[in-house]
Amino acid sequence: MATGLLEMSDPQGSKYRATIEYDGTEYYGFQVQKDKPTVQGAIEDALGCTAGASVRLAGAGRTDAGVHAVGQVISFRLAWAHSVSDLQRALNARLPADVAIRELAQAEDAFHPRFSARSRVYRYTVLNQDIRSPLERRRAYQIAGMLSCSRMDSGAQTLMGSHDFATFGNPTTGRSSVREVMSATWIRTGDWLHFDIEANGFLRRMVRTIVSALLVVGLGKWDQDAISSLLAAEDRAQAPPPAPACGLCLMQVRY
Amino acid sequence: MATGLLEMSDPQGSKYRATIEYDGTEYYGFQVQKDKPTVQGAIEDALGCTAGASVRLAGAGRTDAGVHAVGQVISFRLAWAHSVSDLQRALNARLPADVAIRELAQAEDAFHPRFSARSRVYRYTVLNQDIRSPLERRRAYQIAGMLSCSRMDSGAQTLMGSHDFATFGNPTTGRSSVREVMSATWIRTGDWLHFDIEANGFLRRMVRTIVSALLVVGLGKWDQDAISSLLAAEDRAQAPPPAPACGLCLMQVRY
Repeated sequence: MATGLLEMSDPQGSKYRATIEYDGTEYYGFQVQKDKPTVQGAIEDALGCTAGASVRLAGAGRTDAGVHAVGQVISFRLAWAHSVSDLQRALNARLPADVAIRELAQAEDAFHPRFSARSRVYRYTVLNQDIRSPLERRRAYQIAGMLSCSRMDSGAQTLMGSHDFATFGNPTTGRSSVREVMSATWIRTGDWLHFDIEANGFLRRMVRTIVSALLVVGLGKWDQDAISSLLAAEDRAQAPPPAPACGLCLMQVRY
Repeated sequence: MATGLLEMSDPQGSKYRATIEYDGTEYYGFQVQKDKPTVQGAIEDALGCTAGASVRLAGAGRTDAGVHAVGQVISFRLAWAHSVSDLQRALNARLPADVAIRELAQAEDAFHPRFSARSRVYRYTVLNQDIRSPLERRRAYQIAGMLSCSRMDSGAQTLMGSHDFATFGNPTTGRSSVREVMSATWIRTGDWLHFDIEANGFLRRMVRTIVSALLVVGLGKWDQDAISSLLAAEDRAQAPPPAPACGLCLMQVRY
């Protein structure tokens, strides 16, 4: 694995584990891409600047373009003579305003943010109002038409446990599309609806496609049973297009 | 007054009153300026596009560059043959994503958003955390170091009633700097501190300069009495520089 090789090419460095927050609005997703602004690219630039040498990092989840995080976890190897809090300060001073290292600690050599993870928690935020909100537009998906939170919550219960989620996302070629959902709940507070979902892993676009299907249920256009039918179909073509990225945030990675 | 003249130059139009929300981050303030993006300019462009003729608007408060609003009030005169809700939809479709008309209604001819206003309510938001927050950076002023909310709230009580606020803001040349503060409270919820202040009017930069002085009190560097001394000084030079614009939001205009 390329990441592992590069990490090991600096034998003096210690391994660090960081919790990252970012506003994903201006990025082409987490994962590094040539000639495009990515979160990983921004952090690797700050690491490289601080280390005086190229540093590769590994991340827990490859969030899509426009998706946010308050609890993304990364690891990297770096030779640093000063304290961990000095390193955090140095990195935060070099990172752009829309990315920050919220926590930093030394980690065991065996720690890998993606492979060591037990589960991920995502939150999708819906603003259920007739008029769009300029101040919330980067963080929430505004949707007019009364949403039934209880219908969406019931529909979400269908997803609990281990299933083949082929309808709801794209697996890596040749890999399984079976995932285990540990919790999935919709809660309404005034005009705000929050969908919190925890699973051992997510297929690409899985959360946003689940949200999109549940919104159709919430608007009363589909029955709650639609979700189990979709799940049983194991057919990507039957799901509606994913809900907008702005509403999604990687909240936590559990180890 | 130029605005009045232009408003009256369209004798067929009806008068409308609108409540506006905007994310002020990308604007050089509310008031129109030549060759610079302003909120007023953006709304007048949308109005002009919709009316097929140049339309001038009047606003309740001239928020500074980077300041937000959820309850800015404007009025304008427009000839429109369809319903008020159609007009709102047409305008919102033409406005940029960071400005929206939240409410629209026909208004009495005598209504003026600024001169008819009884009071304005502003909110300043502080995030009291050691590490900056990328997702909150556009809406809150992050400040490290433990802030005492009760000290700031006590300090704010000194401002209640009618005073000459010359220390805290710049009046229009030759105009009075006396204003009446009807309420001023700091409330803490976890790491969040909200300062809500209502007055019959505000001098330029008055809220942010008051916040800045109260933050010094909250950090324990000044005694609570410092606020009454500053007030009594009636001297702009004695106040600290205004707190950043990102934390400020015009919440409501009362009539």
